[in-house]
Amino acid sequence: MSPATIHGVIAVLGGSGHLGGALARRWARAGHSLVLGSREAAKAAEAAAGLSAECGVAVRGLSNRDAAAAADIVVVTVPYASQERVLEDIRPVVAGKLVVDTTVPLVPPKVMRVQLPVEGSAAVRAQRILGDAVTVVSAFHNVAAHKLALSGPVDCDVLVFGDQKEARERVVALAVAAGLRGLHAGALVNSAAAEALTSILIFINKTYAVDGAGLRITGALGTGA
Amino acid sequence: MSPATIHGVIAVLGGSGHLGGALARRWARAGHSLVLGSREAAKAAEAAAGLSAECGVAVRGLSNRDAAAAADIVVVTVPYASQERVLEDIRPVVAGKLVVDTTVPLVPPKVMRVQLPVEGSAAVRAQRILGDAVTVVSAFHNVAAHKLALSGPVDCDVLVFGDQKEARERVVALAVAAGLRGLHAGALVNSAAAEALTSILIFINKTYAVDGAGLRITGALGTGA
Repeated sequence: MSPATIHGVIAVLGGSGHLGGALARRWARAGHSLVLGSREAAKAAEAAAGLSAECGVAVRGLSNRDAAAAADIVVVTVPYASQERVLEDIRPVVAGKLVVDTTVPLVPPKVMRVQLPVEGSAAVRAQRILGDAVTVVSAFHNVAAHKLALSGPVDCDVLVFGDQKEARERVVALAVAAGLRGLHAGALVNSAAAEALTSILIFINKTYAVDGAGLRITGALGTGA
Repeated sequence: MSPATIHGVIAVLGGSGHLGGALARRWARAGHSLVLGSREAAKAAEAAAGLSAECGVAVRGLSNRDAAAAADIVVVTVPYASQERVLEDIRPVVAGKLVVDTTVPLVPPKVMRVQLPVEGSAAVRAQRILGDAVTVVSAFHNVAAHKLALSGPVDCDVLVFGDQKEARERVVALAVAAGLRGLHAGALVNSAAAEALTSILIFINKTYAVDGAGLRITGALGTGA
């Protein structure tokens, strides 16, 4: 499979955070149209101004809801504790759109312990909150934000989950645009695997004194870095 | 961490199956004391005779319960549908022993779909069935049995889950003895990650026409191949 082309504007909600900021920077550098969202529009505007200056592109910063309203693809990179609030906030403006949920259900302080939500995964929870009018795909659970924040290659695959192949393919293209290898990994319920794996990676970081362990699927010839 | 030495006899239950047979062969070749178990002792005896002839070692084949009774470390490699029955069968003879559960909760026909048990993982289910007198560690969820059946290297890490570090360390040593890299991956509840990941690997095998996709943790300097 060759990756789909990315059409339209990408909103990165939580765009002033570590993961959101790093993804936005990589997509901006790759020439994609971006808007950043944050709970406070001022914070998003500040992050967007920095990104615009750094990458020589025009990036706007808005409230999460306004950013989602302005975009075709909405990437949600907020902490687990904020997921429900943010998704309920944007629900009125994302019908018919692709929402990419990156939520990992970490429950502090025991972040090295797998604690999946009652729905089975944060991705399925996202779909339930947003309803059937929204296409939810989940991805980017395992990549270390501080590695993604650098411009070099990241030794980590992106597992992409969703019930529609075409929607997954658009997110595989987003991974490739960020310099990562994206792999189709099956139905949205399968997101539990990648979400749980993040706790294992954190455990391995601590146990083996690793600075950002990642995940590679061997044997697969997927698209991207 | 350097791996623990393996002391005592290893029982491989489901030893006439694909995964059990492949693990047993690798451990036999590495010179470890083995006994094979199967639901039917005759089937185990047949597999053991083949292994003895092939590897030039004396391997016995017994019923699952007799094999477990004769061993210090009990490795359970039976299908999910048989897990409960086999564990209840051996429970009277494994108090104080190390039980290594390899069960992946695949629910045919939808084996590409993550369907974790209500307990959260097959490993936690195993611990509940066996009770607190038994130390359960889970591992070997992701390695393709047909690749393990060959004598060469396998491009897949073994994630090892358990609530006691020392018990995990013994299973890391079992992985190393089988020519694999074993990595401490945290508490037994974390087993959900590796169990779920097997459905993703099966999906990737089909989607990308891969012959046995595997998993590598990047950045980690664990023990083994």
